Amino acid sequence: MSAATEAQAAPMLLRGDHADGVTVLTLNRPASRNSLSLQMLETLEVALADIGEDASRRCIVLAAAGPVFSAGHDLREIIAHRADPDQGRGFYGRAMETCSRVMQAITALPQPVIAAVQGVATAAGCQLVATCDLAVASDQARFCTPGVDIGLFCSTPAVALARAVPRKAAMEMLMLGDMVGAEEALRLGLVNRVVAPDQVMATALHLAGRIAARSALTVRMGKRGFYRQIDLPLAEAYREAACVMADNLMAHDASEGIGAFLEKRRPVWEDR
Amino acid sequence: MSAATEAQAAPMLLRGDHADGVTVLTLNRPASRNSLSLQMLETLEVALADIGEDASRRCIVLAAAGPVFSAGHDLREIIAHRADPDQGRGFYGRAMETCSRVMQAITALPQPVIAAVQGVATAAGCQLVATCDLAVASDQARFCTPGVDIGLFCSTPAVALARAVPRKAAMEMLMLGDMVGAEEALRLGLVNRVVAPDQVMATALHLAGRIAARSALTVRMGKRGFYRQIDLPLAEAYREAACVMADNLMAHDASEGIGAFLEKRRPVWEDR
Amino acid sequence: MSAATEAQAAPMLLRGDHADGVTVLTLNRPASRNSLSLQMLETLEVALADIGEDASRRCIVLAAAGPVFSAGHDLREIIAHRADPDQGRGFYGRAMETCSRVMQAITALPQPVIAAVQGVATAAGCQLVATCDLAVASDQARFCTPGVDIGLFCSTPAVALARAVPRKAAMEMLMLGDMVGAEEALRLGLVNRVVAPDQVMATALHLAGRIAARSALTVRMGKRGFYRQIDLPLAEAYREAACVMADNLMAHDASEGIGAFLEKRRPVWEDR
Repeated sequence: MSAATEAQAAPMLLRGDHADGVTVLTLNRPASRNSLSLQMLETLEVALADIGEDASRRCIVLAAAGPVFSAGHDLREIIAHRADPDQGRGFYGRAMETCSRVMQAITALPQPVIAAVQGVATAAGCQLVATCDLAVASDQARFCTPGVDIGLFCSTPAVALARAVPRKAAMEMLMLGDMVGAEEALRLGLVNRVVAPDQVMATALHLAGRIAARSALTVRMGKRGFYRQIDLPLAEAYREAACVMADNLMAHDASEGIGAFLEKRRPVWEDR
Repeated sequence: MSAATEAQAAPMLLRGDHADGVTVLTLNRPASRNSLSLQMLETLEVALADIGEDASRRCIVLAAAGPVFSAGHDLREIIAHRADPDQGRGFYGRAMETCSRVMQAITALPQPVIAAVQGVATAAGCQLVATCDLAVASDQARFCTPGVDIGLFCSTPAVALARAVPRKAAMEMLMLGDMVGAEEALRLGLVNRVVAPDQVMATALHLAGRIAARSALTVRMGKRGFYRQIDLPLAEAYREAACVMADNLMAHDASEGIGAFLEKRRPVWEDR
Repeated sequence: MSAATEAQAAPMLLRGDHADGVTVLTLNRPASRNSLSLQMLETLEVALADIGEDASRRCIVLAAAGPVFSAGHDLREIIAHRADPDQGRGFYGRAMETCSRVMQAITALPQPVIAAVQGVATAAGCQLVATCDLAVASDQARFCTPGVDIGLFCSTPAVALARAVPRKAAMEMLMLGDMVGAEEALRLGLVNRVVAPDQVMATALHLAGRIAARSALTVRMGKRGFYRQIDLPLAEAYREAACVMADNLMAHDASEGIGAFLEKRRPVWEDR
């Protein structure tokens, strides 16, 4: 089935809302290697905005259909816009801004996002994995940022990659464009777990389910606080985090959680 | 012995000043799992301020009595303050600010601080380990930030943790709250050495003794300079560090140290 | 041969321009353990400025003659300036500023720089390795920042080291001054590859050759963009990187590279 046919046959992003509060978003353009066309990015952006508003959704798994997780930007789309009157400048700016917005939307999303990486993740696809809060990878998954091979340095993927792995490792991936195996990705900090191919989704769902069972308020305050403090100098980071912590302490769920812990019973979260 | 009885029977923080310039501070509330009650935090703060003024103290080992290193904030104390007229807000703010001040006092202390982690370090206890300049752990030690389990995300521990270990590893510890073993903590960069349980204190004292034998001025300038530059952009970091280095070069101990090295003799530091 | 004789007999920095666009710079004061005297630093600075202007040079290998990569600052020179009327202050300031400028010149250089570390790299020599974009090390190479032993904390090396390896590992190297072996340096992220001693130069040249075969414009935009975004908060980093990416997309080499990829042919870069 060609990409064009496929595009008409099925939605490009599948959404599965599980009863336990876990939502699975699945990139669903296997014939196009789940490339991040502008439409795919906009679809993701809308889906994330929607989930962000939906308090019943407590943790997200970002998965992909077919053998490839995501091949990054859609090169055919990029090359086609060379024929635009402005030689593509308008489209390229829009595509890169949208992509950067989607990545930041994952970080800004109240719910944690776990990448379930079943196959190869390249360029902006690798950026997607680096951006997610957590990542589970198949032992067959591989990662690379090979833009340098095609005259287009992976400069936006570098933003996420260089914040996830040591600096020289990021530079090597960016300058050489070589594939990095799952075990090496684990060692570098790009993913949290490496499992057998048939365990990727089960593991991601298990972790997501554990997070979804926690106080949603607590998880939300924690995730937001984490990314707020991480770019600040130490004193400011502590000022920020101490406020988050004091606010968290005032919430019902902290009282309930601490009380339940001391009384050795199961806590009952407010929004459950 | 109950925590209350224990509180009356012994000081909550032991201080042992060794002849070689090493001071051992020992959290001494084993029955309360060395929890960081407001009083414990204030006691630590006073002790650190005192040591900071004491030029005879050259390196600090932070240890703990009993099987647990520290269980973090005192949950019974926190829950008790729910009954305050302001439902605890005043106390919680004070506790979090004090805790953040203590952590920053360790970083700001002229002397290096080495954590000697004999057992489990959780929540703010894990933060304490992440904050120390160096850490030696027993192979039985374990680390976690499990606040998420009790409705209280470890947002202030996250500040220290995310600066010590890779970002996704920090996020995993914070979102899942699972125990991390000593070897994994070593791999992540949370501790520097993993040794047999009966070697923790000996190893920490050995490292501390080596640091204490160096020029105190040099160690002090180095530690302060390190944390000053680390939050700065590269050019500013170099401006700062080049000044520290030039000042250090003007000091007697640098002349003496370089001279001794070139003459293949032992240096004699100014303040010894 | 004494250092003085050697200084007259051969240039302190060798430059070899290979036909494939790779330039090898070789520190050539083996009798002085390739120490970074002010003259060596100034020579390096001039060479880097010159290479930065030379579009035919596409990747740099920084190597060293003799058994030592570099022992850092020239201690004899430092101690000699104690006799200056200002007790050395002027010289020390100049030496540290020059050293910091050279390190930042490596980062700012349009071309990637790969360290080929055949032996021991200490103090500012270790800083040089930490500063290079990539590093290949002999399995016999070792690394340390031992200034603390001679009363002169490695405060400027700390700037580069703490940006390459985890914080506690950097602190340990700086506070204890112990040698770190090549495998440990690889684990920490200080180097990218560890190879047999006789493979260091071949490996560095191979990696450099691969980078040199890419679009120079792309590599240049990528390297500059990488270091620009890395010190910025996330939103600013993405703003910066998205601009770089859109500009890169407008360039001939991106069109050519993407077109060649889609057509399964070899790209022909503009400046080749």
